[in-house]
Amino acid sequence: MVVTRRIGLKTKGDCHIVDITREVAQEVAGSGLKDGTVTVFVTGSTGGVTTVEYESGLLSDLRNLFDRLVPTNIPYQHNLRWGDGNGHAHVRASLLGASLTVPFVDQRLALGTWQQIVFIDFDNRPRSRELVLQLMGE
Amino acid sequence: MVVTRRIGLKTKGDCHIVDITREVAQEVAGSGLKDGTVTVFVTGSTGGVTTVEYESGLLSDLRNLFDRLVPTNIPYQHNLRWGDGNGHAHVRASLLGASLTVPFVDQRLALGTWQQIVFIDFDNRPRSRELVLQLMGE
Amino acid sequence: MVVTRRIGLKTKGDCHIVDITREVAQEVAGSGLKDGTVTVFVTGSTGGVTTVEYESGLLSDLRNLFDRLVPTNIPYQHNLRWGDGNGHAHVRASLLGASLTVPFVDQRLALGTWQQIVFIDFDNRPRSRELVLQLMGE
Repeated sequence: MVVTRRIGLKTKGDCHIVDITREVAQEVAGSGLKDGTVTVFVTGSTGGVTTVEYESGLLSDLRNLFDRLVPTNIPYQHNLRWGDGNGHAHVRASLLGASLTVPFVDQRLALGTWQQIVFIDFDNRPRSRELVLQLMGE
Repeated sequence: MVVTRRIGLKTKGDCHIVDITREVAQEVAGSGLKDGTVTVFVTGSTGGVTTVEYESGLLSDLRNLFDRLVPTNIPYQHNLRWGDGNGHAHVRASLLGASLTVPFVDQRLALGTWQQIVFIDFDNRPRSRELVLQLMGE
Repeated sequence: MVVTRRIGLKTKGDCHIVDITREVAQEVAGSGLKDGTVTVFVTGSTGGVTTVEYESGLLSDLRNLFDRLVPTNIPYQHNLRWGDGNGHAHVRASLLGASLTVPFVDQRLALGTWQQIVFIDFDNRPRSRELVLQLMGE
């Protein structure tokens, strides 16, 4: 059985990290499925999804990671051609990845105690985002 | 219901980025499944899969990312032991990841407007590749 | 059909890379499912999952990658606030990712010849770990 749900988000951009665990857990609990997987998918090319212990220290550390690995202040061909100024956002998104698949058992996400599901908006401006949740199971 | 498809590719190596969105979309449309997920899986240890806005500026930026993070010109133990010269390709592939799971709804991939699915071949020579698409749904 | 399995591991920490291919393959072979996907999920925020050719040179190269990209000896806000000393482990785990989805066909994993599934424990101490395998198929 397949259940499709969507999560709408207002994001601030610039590596805004949003905890979506509660929303995903609620959709699983209300889906009518007992066991299966939920695929969290980012429709868009300047955001990504992963898990993290959602505390302010680590959020800062994670932002520092992307600033180090994919700096905003180096030349991007994307910016030279399109003038969007968000070349770094695209590259960060491709590196982190657009999909995360999380098992659920007895209607509960199989997450660790200190593990949250997060969407990261790498774009250089506020955005309205929609994530697709594809629940598959029985 | 499960449908297995394979995509064959001729790649040039050296961070060759191939847009496979059309092939994946066609397999979804022809699968007989309406809603579900397609897992794109790289069988091999020197290639990866992700999404990106497929325009030449970003392809260049993405290649620069891997050249910065996983340079070709630093020592790799893999090269010292096996002489393949593709240690960087293995490391890049492990970092990017071998699987991507994309939802589809009404036989259409739930991608963003400017978001394509790409296979990246990190190996240091042309290759014949086969990707496995596992479609699950109803 | 959904089959949930768990793999218990004793890990040494400090970028300990564990080959779990055999365990995953055995659970697939014994699941009663013929075709489908297995999602390997890390319950915890200081470990990740990927694929690699499991030979000692590449294991060393992969550890060097994480030492370069996410060094242990730079300041982490997580460490300043919580004193765990494992800020780098959390950041590495978020970068690598907690889920990998591998297709299986005729009860066999669709892996390349030189491609193994690995769990990487980034934490700074030995741990008892549990991975969740969610098998879906028919």
